[in-house]
Amino acid sequence: MLFTLDAMGGDKAPAAPCGGAVLACREDPELSVALVGRKEAIAPYLENVERDVMSRINIVEADEVIGMGDTPSTSIRSKKNSSLRIALEMVRAAEAVGCISAGNTGAIVAGGVLVVGRIKGIDRPGLAVPIASLKKTTLLLDVGATVRCKAVNLYQFAHMGAIYMRSLAGIENPSVGLFSNGEEDIKGDDAISEAREMLGGAKLAFGGFVEGKDVAIGRTDVVVCDGFTGNALIKFGEGIGEMVKVVVAEEIKSGFLPKIGALLMKPALKKMAARFEYEKNGGSPLLGVNGIVIKAHGNSRDRAIAGALHVASGFARLKGTDLIKESFEA
Amino acid sequence: MLFTLDAMGGDKAPAAPCGGAVLACREDPELSVALVGRKEAIAPYLENVERDVMSRINIVEADEVIGMGDTPSTSIRSKKNSSLRIALEMVRAAEAVGCISAGNTGAIVAGGVLVVGRIKGIDRPGLAVPIASLKKTTLLLDVGATVRCKAVNLYQFAHMGAIYMRSLAGIENPSVGLFSNGEEDIKGDDAISEAREMLGGAKLAFGGFVEGKDVAIGRTDVVVCDGFTGNALIKFGEGIGEMVKVVVAEEIKSGFLPKIGALLMKPALKKMAARFEYEKNGGSPLLGVNGIVIKAHGNSRDRAIAGALHVASGFARLKGTDLIKESFEA
Repeated sequence: MLFTLDAMGGDKAPAAPCGGAVLACREDPELSVALVGRKEAIAPYLENVERDVMSRINIVEADEVIGMGDTPSTSIRSKKNSSLRIALEMVRAAEAVGCISAGNTGAIVAGGVLVVGRIKGIDRPGLAVPIASLKKTTLLLDVGATVRCKAVNLYQFAHMGAIYMRSLAGIENPSVGLFSNGEEDIKGDDAISEAREMLGGAKLAFGGFVEGKDVAIGRTDVVVCDGFTGNALIKFGEGIGEMVKVVVAEEIKSGFLPKIGALLMKPALKKMAARFEYEKNGGSPLLGVNGIVIKAHGNSRDRAIAGALHVASGFARLKGTDLIKESFEA
Repeated sequence: MLFTLDAMGGDKAPAAPCGGAVLACREDPELSVALVGRKEAIAPYLENVERDVMSRINIVEADEVIGMGDTPSTSIRSKKNSSLRIALEMVRAAEAVGCISAGNTGAIVAGGVLVVGRIKGIDRPGLAVPIASLKKTTLLLDVGATVRCKAVNLYQFAHMGAIYMRSLAGIENPSVGLFSNGEEDIKGDDAISEAREMLGGAKLAFGGFVEGKDVAIGRTDVVVCDGFTGNALIKFGEGIGEMVKVVVAEEIKSGFLPKIGALLMKPALKKMAARFEYEKNGGSPLLGVNGIVIKAHGNSRDRAIAGALHVASGFARLKGTDLIKESFEA
């Protein structure tokens, strides 16, 4: 099972994509990875890798790079030799099962739509992030693919999110909440009200409106919102995670007893802070495109890239894209 | 300095409003409070209160109550004898300097506009919440008064937020960030882009776009967003606060050493969790109305109500409403 990996995408490229590919191939003997990017930049990171693993890793030359500051749709159109564009072209040509990138989010979304193409019946794709909420893992979408949404977009996100959680997390009948500024019927704006009505009649375990608190607590398996709101939530959560670390460190300085306490609590606190690094927990699938496209956090290290590869292969094994296609054709 | 307090608003009414009024009057000898609501429900909570404090607390009879589930504008119009309506009427009639309520948020906003009235030049009011971010206290507005905003609303929120932080927090030239889904110029939607342009030319320390992470970290003194987004953020933060408490408790169960650690760390952890109870930290001023209107958290206990009263009196002493008026008249 071959996946393309954008070797030039992300803050720690090409080191992290290369290291992540090696790690993932070591952990999964059925996995093959095509590292797409500048051969001479990539090759040094693959020296001394064991032969078995190297037999499943190859380099695909791409001499252009889409930077974090590049305009998404313009760069994906004009930089035909960019690592991301070529990695996505291979998915469109069915030379690879899917593509993973830690690069420019907007370019990944634009490339998903323009290069890989949308699934028939889907108007806009949704970028989904699994959130470690209190009670369960909640899939939040969209977190940035479609900034402002019509009702039909939210409706489609709900179905795709449910299919994803059913197939990948094995939840039989995933509950879906529609994000709003309160639980009461009168909350939301026009698009949200309309989506609520559409979802009320859908073949889904629709749980009505959910609000910010419910996302953290995990009231439903899926939460649907527009890309602006989803982006606000995950970035705020990441910021809080960083704050928790610093605040605890500062509190420790304030006395002797807390210091012992903190040392003893350190593993638990570290584990907790990691909960907020949402996008590092396996990457974000771009749902609604005609192939597997996974966005890894821009800040991903080897471990996070490997996690995104495992999410991709898991979704491929369960034929997730086909399940979404079948659902929207019916 | 007399304030009206909606004695029937909030989950813990009338106990918490009554207790909060006593507490605040005890702490501030210049403060007087009119508890508005059902006399017979309020009176029992004022028994045994010392004479000095009781000389500054009186009960104003109001036999109707606006419930949490009532439709905001309808209830504020039709329930003319409700505690909230009468409390706000007294502000309009200049019989009181301001009004505090822990009741139905929508009704407080609707009442602020319909009963107290808007300041000339302000299109829509903004509900502001001080957030204990990592580096400072950041004032976030709007958190629910104006669900979707035009550029002009965001522009006005920015000015009002800056005046509030300058007068109440004593920050000479408060920095103002405009919330968006990323820091780059191309982010946001049409209203946000337009507001960015307007703010770029304003007499303000405008810090450009800020995103979710910046709110938690505290990059600017004021962050401006629409009511939907602000509401999403504070409720998500509150949910995370609850999650942190439960997760730490669960981790403690997992072994002997962490238990000692947690006991030693308990005060620090408790202090941290309290940071996320945004609305309990003094209440949320409704900026843009022609008088002081403070919304306390629905779940407020005595301490939180007293805090909201102190915020109200602080803003009154500094003539905050007049400062906003002067700024928008100029």
